[in-house]
Amino acid sequence: MSEPRTARAAYEALLKDLRETAVLASAGAVLAWDQETQLPPRGASLRADQLAALSGLVHERRTRPEVQEWLATAEADPDLRNDPDASANLREIRRDLDRALKLPGSLVREIAQTAALSQRAWRDAREASDFGSFAPWLEKSFDLARQKALCYRPDAPVYDTLLDEYEPDATAEPLVQIFSELRARLTPLIAEAAPRHARLSTPIDGLTIPVSKQMELIRFVAQRIGFDFEAGRLDVSTHPFCEAIGPGDTRLTTRFDEAHFLDALSSTMHEAGHGMYEQGLPKEAHFGEPLAESASLGIHESQSRLWENFVGRSAPFWSWALPEARRLLGSDLGGASVDDVVRAANRVKPGLVRVEADEVTYNLHVLLRFDLERALLSGDLPVRELPGAWNERMRQDLGLEVPDDRQGCLQDIHWSMGAIGYFPTYTLGNLYAAQFWSAANREVPSLQDAIARGEFAPLLDWLREKIHRHGRRFSAFELCQRATGEPLSVEAFFRYLEGKVAT
Amino acid sequence: MSEPRTARAAYEALLKDLRETAVLASAGAVLAWDQETQLPPRGASLRADQLAALSGLVHERRTRPEVQEWLATAEADPDLRNDPDASANLREIRRDLDRALKLPGSLVREIAQTAALSQRAWRDAREASDFGSFAPWLEKSFDLARQKALCYRPDAPVYDTLLDEYEPDATAEPLVQIFSELRARLTPLIAEAAPRHARLSTPIDGLTIPVSKQMELIRFVAQRIGFDFEAGRLDVSTHPFCEAIGPGDTRLTTRFDEAHFLDALSSTMHEAGHGMYEQGLPKEAHFGEPLAESASLGIHESQSRLWENFVGRSAPFWSWALPEARRLLGSDLGGASVDDVVRAANRVKPGLVRVEADEVTYNLHVLLRFDLERALLSGDLPVRELPGAWNERMRQDLGLEVPDDRQGCLQDIHWSMGAIGYFPTYTLGNLYAAQFWSAANREVPSLQDAIARGEFAPLLDWLREKIHRHGRRFSAFELCQRATGEPLSVEAFFRYLEGKVAT
Repeated sequence: MSEPRTARAAYEALLKDLRETAVLASAGAVLAWDQETQLPPRGASLRADQLAALSGLVHERRTRPEVQEWLATAEADPDLRNDPDASANLREIRRDLDRALKLPGSLVREIAQTAALSQRAWRDAREASDFGSFAPWLEKSFDLARQKALCYRPDAPVYDTLLDEYEPDATAEPLVQIFSELRARLTPLIAEAAPRHARLSTPIDGLTIPVSKQMELIRFVAQRIGFDFEAGRLDVSTHPFCEAIGPGDTRLTTRFDEAHFLDALSSTMHEAGHGMYEQGLPKEAHFGEPLAESASLGIHESQSRLWENFVGRSAPFWSWALPEARRLLGSDLGGASVDDVVRAANRVKPGLVRVEADEVTYNLHVLLRFDLERALLSGDLPVRELPGAWNERMRQDLGLEVPDDRQGCLQDIHWSMGAIGYFPTYTLGNLYAAQFWSAANREVPSLQDAIARGEFAPLLDWLREKIHRHGRRFSAFELCQRATGEPLSVEAFFRYLEGKVAT
Repeated sequence: MSEPRTARAAYEALLKDLRETAVLASAGAVLAWDQETQLPPRGASLRADQLAALSGLVHERRTRPEVQEWLATAEADPDLRNDPDASANLREIRRDLDRALKLPGSLVREIAQTAALSQRAWRDAREASDFGSFAPWLEKSFDLARQKALCYRPDAPVYDTLLDEYEPDATAEPLVQIFSELRARLTPLIAEAAPRHARLSTPIDGLTIPVSKQMELIRFVAQRIGFDFEAGRLDVSTHPFCEAIGPGDTRLTTRFDEAHFLDALSSTMHEAGHGMYEQGLPKEAHFGEPLAESASLGIHESQSRLWENFVGRSAPFWSWALPEARRLLGSDLGGASVDDVVRAANRVKPGLVRVEADEVTYNLHVLLRFDLERALLSGDLPVRELPGAWNERMRQDLGLEVPDDRQGCLQDIHWSMGAIGYFPTYTLGNLYAAQFWSAANREVPSLQDAIARGEFAPLLDWLREKIHRHGRRFSAFELCQRATGEPLSVEAFFRYLEGKVAT
């Protein structure tokens, strides 16, 4: 490796190296997608080894002495510090490197391997609703997360350190406040709306639509709202997700319920929201650099929730989508009107499963996980007592009995993947989405008229301009301030929800 | 890396390292499979970069000084040389290492990257039947193959060196003899049978069977003959293939023609033959070692052709399979009898496409490619003249006019992947298959009765015992001698073919 002679050359060498590392990491992303959609059962052990090997190699590349030297040389240069692209990149590369340097490679590999094996164990345990067989893996996931957090910041609260990985600069304390306000204001909304909505019936309730027909509808809608299928795919998996592999390759998954065709549509619009964010990041020019990465998981989730809920459950959307749905599903949908479908799509109904929750009860599901994962991390809640604590909390918050762990504490994949401190980003996403939606409508007054004509470019263009093209240039909080003119708050979300529930 | 203190320790370190390298290489195999079955069009460039990066890393790992030292230490030890497992491993590891050391990493990466991009170019060119757009890639593939051969053995004939990579110890010279004998004996067989078979019609000719029904049949048959779906998959691709990723993960692909249901069945039995060989290699214990690798591509092809042709086109097979096919295809198949289907499956009919060729004309397709790739390599045939040379040869050998390059010189994926010197292994596979089939029937006289009852374990067990479990322990020629008691010859193949055509 020859020594770059100038700071600019060091910076270029750094970016080239980051790109090469990202190419290697993106191979791991293909393997992760394959694991959820294609992998035969007996291939699980090899897959864990492959992912561990790649994680180890990526970590090793990221922390090489050359990388540290290039970065230090570039950081010392005033011209680069004054260049807006370079300074944003350098700030975030430093952040990543300082963190990576604190993790031993052996822990990186163990985390990757455990995540792969533990996901498989979770899948089997969930299938059989057998918490006992998953408990040792859960124990291990929390233990590794704790170890990771202590490597990063030995003196900081463990939960804050974990959260910071998904939502930079966020901490638990203000979230506790936000959740407490959400709970206080959501509880009366639910108490008012749920009994009223329980009496509501619509012509699409109980309709059965074959999966092949649903597939036609969701592909049509995903394409129409702006997901580029030349640069992506849509497949089926147990748990819908979006895997952003790299430039030209972003993959969505969904799942189907013949008796509830709105579910696959919602989950597809949700994942397409993630996917369009990824497709809007400037990866052709900046793959591997922070400039081509998402600002935070909260911002990522704002994009998915915005398309799923603010667009996909709205009257303007359905005034365009209903005739298309009739045509593609090959059904008159029981003669349902736009109002009927919108009512069905917005029914407030306490349920057991987070991903099927309405917008009003959703954040209580997140709060439950936020509280329980902090208790598990601190040791206040022993892993073996999780099912009991979960069920008790569901009783208390939503008045529901959990019949089995499959629909209780085994429903989510996240903890099995080691994604601990991740759930609150879902609620942040809802808040960001409300604020972005409100700003977009203020700045583009014809937005909803366009949506009613099946034209989604005005909204997507606004998101591309205000959010996607910036990558990690700004922090999530700053991005929000710049895009909406205001700091993040719960107000836009409540205005939106209260308006909706009142009608 | 601490110095192993004994030869045994060096050997163990070597095997552990080979396994780790194989894990990394197997990640590349997932990417290669994904490229053919899943990859969105705009992801092609990233995929080429990923495959190049992984190939480079694997090459680098394989040729590290530690590896060379461990191997040298192990080779010097008399105990290891007397251990049958270790001595076979050491012999083949040496062979691989000596070759790998001769290739610069830059060439390894360029070959991988070119193969990925060139396959994409081939796919597009084939679709549009546009040889011109593919010609520069073909030029480059042959150029890289030439460079590779000269790195390996600067003084040997280039073609022999390339062939040796797929079929160790094989050379062009005896193949020229074998092909010449094949041509001499096949030409009259074709002249006699083709006109007779052209007049033959059967009740299944022209039957249309929906793809979803065909899928049920081929999955059923693949499972029944012994392919383990817990450790593998079956998908659809342009060109059927088998990708052996590693322990517990072997993937087959096929393609469908609604008007010829026998095609998907044949190609599935073919790929399942490859897949069962891979599933029968001792990978759980020896992944990464030569002991868990196939003996040669000719031996590999013998396994696929054996199941496709010797089993799948036989009367005993169809006496079991016909009722199953009727049931699963949901069709009485025009009232066809076992004899009808066997006749349809064995019709000698000169055609344009190798993978659809009957057993009699098949080897003339291979011979054409063998001759043309040698001419392309030597420069006697300029790339731009390939279509003309191809078409002339089809006229001469099979009396057919080639209407477009799609059905002519653009039909095969191999050259686009840089697989040059690969085609003759198909003919070797046919010859080995005939000899194995003859020996298995001699040693297990009830074999065909079992097949007629839908019992395939006696054949699979014989193959596992005589071939699969040995991996690369013996050379292909030696394996043949041990399994059949005779060296490889064309006799078993001709006895089989002549017997078949006579009926």
